Formats: sequence, C-alpha cells, structure tokens
Amino acid sequence: MTFQHSSAVSVVGLGPMGAALAETFLGKGISVTVWNRTPGKADTLVAKGAHLAATVDEAMAASPFTIACINDYPTMYRVLDGAQGGLRGRTLVNLNSGTPSEARAMADWAAEQGLDYLDGAIMVPPTLVGGPGSVFLYSGPQDLFARHRATLAELGDPRFLGADPGLAVLYNTALLHFMYAHMNGFLHAAAMVGSAGVPAAEFAELALGWFAPVVLDPAGLASQAPSLDDGAYPGELGTMVMNLNALEHIARASAEQGVNTAWPTLMQELAERVIAQGHGEDNYFSMFEAFKRP
Amino acid sequence: MTFQHSSAVSVVGLGPMGAALAETFLGKGISVTVWNRTPGKADTLVAKGAHLAATVDEAMAASPFTIACINDYPTMYRVLDGAQGGLRGRTLVNLNSGTPSEARAMADWAAEQGLDYLDGAIMVPPTLVGGPGSVFLYSGPQDLFARHRATLAELGDPRFLGADPGLAVLYNTALLHFMYAHMNGFLHAAAMVGSAGVPAAEFAELALGWFAPVVLDPAGLASQAPSLDDGAYPGELGTMVMNLNALEHIARASAEQGVNTAWPTLMQELAERVIAQGHGEDNYFSMFEAFKRP
Ligand SMILES: NC(=O)c1ccc[n+]([C@@H]2O[C@H](COP(=O)([O-])OP(=O)(O)OC[C@H]3O[C@@H](n4cnc5c(N)ncnc54)[C@H](OP(=O)(O)O)[C@@H]3O)[C@@H](O)[C@H]2O)c1
Ligand SMILES: NC(=O)c1ccc[n+]([C@@H]2O[C@H](COP(=O)([O-])OP(=O)(O)OC[C@H]3O[C@@H](n4cnc5c(N)ncnc54)[C@H](OP(=O)(O)O)[C@@H]3O)[C@@H](O)[C@H]2O)c1
Repeated sequence: MTFQHSSAVSVVGLGPMGAALAETFLGKGISVTVWNRTPGKADTLVAKGAHLAATVDEAMAASPFTIACINDYPTMYRVLDGAQGGLRGRTLVNLNSGTPSEARAMADWAAEQGLDYLDGAIMVPPTLVGGPGSVFLYSGPQDLFARHRATLAELGDPRFLGADPGLAVLYNTALLHFMYAHMNGFLHAAAMVGSAGVPAAEFAELALGWFAPVVLDPAGLASQAPSLDDGAYPGELGTMVMNLNALEHIARASAEQGVNTAWPTLMQELAERVIAQGHGEDNYFSMFEAFKRP
Repeated sequence: MTFQHSSAVSVVGLGPMGAALAETFLGKGISVTVWNRTPGKADTLVAKGAHLAATVDEAMAASPFTIACINDYPTMYRVLDGAQGGLRGRTLVNLNSGTPSEARAMADWAAEQGLDYLDGAIMVPPTLVGGPGSVFLYSGPQDLFARHRATLAELGDPRFLGADPGLAVLYNTALLHFMYAHMNGFLHAAAMVGSAGVPAAEFAELALGWFAPVVLDPAGLASQAPSLDDGAYPGELGTMVMNLNALEHIARASAEQGVNTAWPTLMQELAERVIAQGHGEDNYFSMFEAFKRP
C-alpha cells in the first residue's frame, strides 16, 4: 500500500506531553498533523502551523507515521477503535506510559490489525523534550525504528533497546524506580534529622552538597555492575554482615526518632534474607539476589 | 586537674577503622598512643612510631584526648569500665556507629563520670580517612570540639552539628539510609530489566552513564529542599496523582516480571496515604509527610 502524505509526522494526544512533542517538531521545521479528543487543545499548535485532523483516521493517514501520547494503554485501544478507515499499513509509535505486558499485548493486537507498531517511553518532562540531555527509549521491530529514527531524533536521543516490545516501558519503570528510590532516600533522611529539629535546607548542604556527589557517584556503582552479571560478590572491602549492622542502626534510629520505620525495616529484612542464603561474607551487591525474587 | 601528656592523641580500638585513624595521624607527624583488646593489632603502628599502652587507663592518660573506635556502644562501656584510674578530667571522642539514643545515653553517663565527651561519626571507609573528600561529623559541647578541632581535622573535614550528642549518629544513619536507598534503587532496577534478559552492565550504561548524572542531579533536589521546611509543595509541574500512576506502573511491572514487589508496593502505599491526606494535587516532595510519621 502507498499513501499520499501531507505531513512528516502525526501526533495523537495533546496533553502536556503530546503538545510538547508536536511543538518540538514544529520548532524544528517539521510538518505536523495533530489530533486530540478535545480539539481546543490544538489551537496554539495550529497557530504555529500544525494541521488539525478531524479524526484519528485522518491523522494516521496524513503522515508516514503517527506518534501517540495518550494517558494510558486502555484509552489507546478506544482511540484506535475510532480509526474507521482501518489501521492496515499505518505505522504507530506509542509513547504512553504503562507496563511491559501492556506494551506486549498492544504489539500483538497491532500485528492482528496489520498496524506497524513500535513502543517507546519518554524519559524527560515536557519542558526538556527536544533539548540537550533528552532521551527517548524504543523497542519493537528494529527496521521500523531505523526507518523513523531521524524524525524521532528531533525529540531526544533515540535509544533502541531490542525487539521485545515490552523493553521500553520496562526500562522506563526501572529507571523511574531508581529515581523514586533516590528521592525517597533523601526525603526519609531529611525526616530523620528533621525529627531532631534540623531544617531540611541545612541537611541538604551536607547531604546534597557533599555526600551525594562524592558517595553516590554513578561511576562507583557502574564499576561494580558487571559483578551482578557474574553473580560474584567478593567481600574483602565490606560484608553483608557489616552492612546489616548499619541497616539495623538506621531502622532503630528511625524508630527512636518517631519517623517511618516500614521502609528501613524492609531493607533490614531483605539483608537478613540474603545473609540467610549464605551471602554474609559477600559484599553489598549480593542484595541483588533479594531484588531478583518475588 | 592537669596531666602530663606523652602524645598528642590516643586511639582506642584498632579494627580496620581505628587502625586507619592512628595511621593517618602518624603519617601527618602527630604522636599517637594506641590501645586495643588484642594488642597484636598494634604491631604495624608501633613499627611506625605509635606508643602502645598496656591499659585503656594508660592510653587515656597519655594524651589530651582519646578517640575511641570500637565496634559498638555496649562494648564501649565495657572497655571504659576497665579504666581503673577513673575517667574524671579525661576527654573522649567516640566514633563508634550506633543510634542517637545510644549516643545521648553515653553522653549522660560520661557526665556522671566527669568525663568530657564528644560524639562523632565517620562518613568514609578506612581507605579514604585523611584524604580529600573525607568528612567526620561531631556533636556535643561546642567548646570541646573547638579545643580539638585542629587535630580532628587531620582525619577529614570536621563538621560540628550541634550540642545534642545524638546528632552525629543521627546524621550518619540518615546519610547511610540515603546511600542504601540509592544503591538498592539501582539494584532493584537492574533486577527488573534483568528479568527480561538485559545484562546489568548494559543497563548500567544508560542508568549510570546517562540517567543518574542527569536526572538524579543533587542540585535539583537541593533547590527543592527549602520547600520541606515550609511544608508547601506546589504541584504545577507535576502532582502526586501523576506520580502515583508511575508508582503503580513500577509495582505492576515488578509483579509481571517476577521480581521483588514488597518495596515498590510500599512506596505506592505511602503515596496513596499522602494523597488520602489531601496532597493529591501537590508535588512529589509532599511524600515527606509520609516519611515524617511512624
Ligand atoms: N507529563 C510528563 O512529565 C510525562 C513524562 C513522561 C511520560 N509521560 C507520559 O505521556 C503520556 C501523556 O501524558 P500527559 O502528561 O500529556 O497527560 P495525560 O493526562 O497522561 O494524558 C492526556 C492525554 O490523554 C487523552 N485522553 C485521556 N482520556 C482519553 C479518552 N478517554 N479518550 C481520548 N483521549 C483521552 C487526553 O485527551 P483530552 O485532552 O481530550 O483530555 C490527552 O490527550 C502519559 O502516558 C504519561 O505517562 C508524561
Ligand atoms: N570500617 C568501616 O568502613 C567503617 C566506616 C565508618 C564507621 N565505622 C565504625 O567504626 C567502628 C570500628 O569499625 P571497624 O571497621 O574498625 O571494625 P569493628 O569490627 O566494628 O570493630 C573492631 C574493634 O572493636 C573491638 N572490640 C570488639 N569487641 C570487643 C570487646 N568485647 N572488647 C574490647 N574491644 C572489642 C576490636 O578489638 P579486637 O581487635 O580485640 O577484636 C576492634 O578494636 C564501628 O563502630 C564501625 O561501625 C567503620
């Protein structure tokens, strides 16, 4: 099938993120067709030169490929059900957030419709789309990615992760977990010292001005990451038993000071489990064995 | 009381850390008296010029102040009980790890003995003591800290936190919690992508080579820390409801992929609690309200 295309890319969904995607394309001189359930949200984009499609169908027909950025996967099916002209021969790059099984299920469903389907995830907030440091993740058919790579690259560094369509959202949730762990770690720590009357702004000077840049240096973790693949955790510079001692102090200090104990207690229990499995004299990275299991 | 002192500082406890403290002083030309339950551990230090005391008593009498670095507080009492000559007029800087209430109890006990007491915490491993980036925390009587500041500064940047003797170990446990949260965040994330066959070393390129330096930038958190003291969490750039959506995806993705779910589920529950308390339209820092409470 060949189609007549009137624009380079279509964007379906004009929430804060979809609007940022469309605006980035327009700012780089790329012609865009847009569609949104609530058409009024397209007004500023239309004023900047976007073509407003009356239906999803029209939007998907207008460009060689369509980027969808809707709130979630269940809604995505409903939106695509509205494509009365059929999806066969169209190409969809879906940038919704969700879970790996949702992405895999949609890839299977797309195959049944004859829709070429790439799943993706956006790793930056709307304000950073298209700027330096912006990264987008993609997974699915590599040839599909290669075909649209140049256009996708306008949004941010496009990283192709593999053929499993669930990989982009899996990486996305994994990286977000890392981010929340980090932020929660700071917030819990601030709550601990806050319980003794220390202002968070004062604690931040030490915790973020000195401790984080020096001790939480990503290069340190990176140098140890290969040991996770080997499953070898030599404990010469520090053992799980030593670390459990520190984790116990954290849990007890949290209890003494009257702040949340559920999280420190859980971390202590996971360390005890790993030690019970024989990792007492291994280093802290043996905690990986606890996180790998339900 | 005045004493004749034969060295500038005494170090009690010669585990890996105590030995590093004594060695650092010797390397900087500062005379040191040492004591350890197992005297053989002093051999290398004695060869480098340390004076070996036969008793804790003798060690504490030999210098204007004594640094203790023993495994824990309960052991510390036992060691000091061995100081038959009495503790009155001596000065002790205690660098054991422990909890705030242990530090406060020991400060009270020291006051009863007429022992001048400063509590502290070591924020670096033995290999980094005395080097650039080394930081030591102290709390207790400020005049005592000021008197010995110059000598303590040889071990690392000495930060005085306040008169409450529990502050040094409280900061210590808080910062360690931040560190474990960060490391655990990476390990759990690596377990998530690992469940789809992604090697940790490959994931580390993105998670530590790009994501951590850009997204976990300490300056970003630092700029928001003052809002914790104000208790104001304006949600213009992102709300708890949005973040809960992401936390749900993380918990569901963890379950789908068969990795640990206890931690992501706990974080989701804390977010739900904060939303139930009326912070749904506030930003993510309102999670502070959950960590502040038991
Ligand atoms: N915002 C961020 O910082 C960010 C960062 C990374 C990823 N993401 C992801 O990007 C996606 C879009 O996010 P967003 O921030 O733009 O806002 P959003 O609130 O998640 O999604 C808004 C979009 O979904 C559409 N929508 C919702 N229900 C619909 C329905 N029943 N039928 C048709 N359309 C419906 C909205 O249309 P109407 O305008 O008609 O309501 C709008 O286009 C989400 O999956 C989000 O997780 C967002
Ligand atoms: N190592 C680190 O990376 C690090 C970092 C920060 C803080 N710290 C803290 O520094 C302190 C010392 O740590 P460490 O690494 O040197 O090793 P450690 O194993 O925690 O402590 C060893 C010291 O405790 C003494 N000790 C243990 N039980 C004793 C008893 N019943 N009576 C008398 N002395 C006893 C040992 O004497 P013997 O030699 O006779 O056994 C030795 O001097 C700990 O509180 C630790 O948490 C350590």
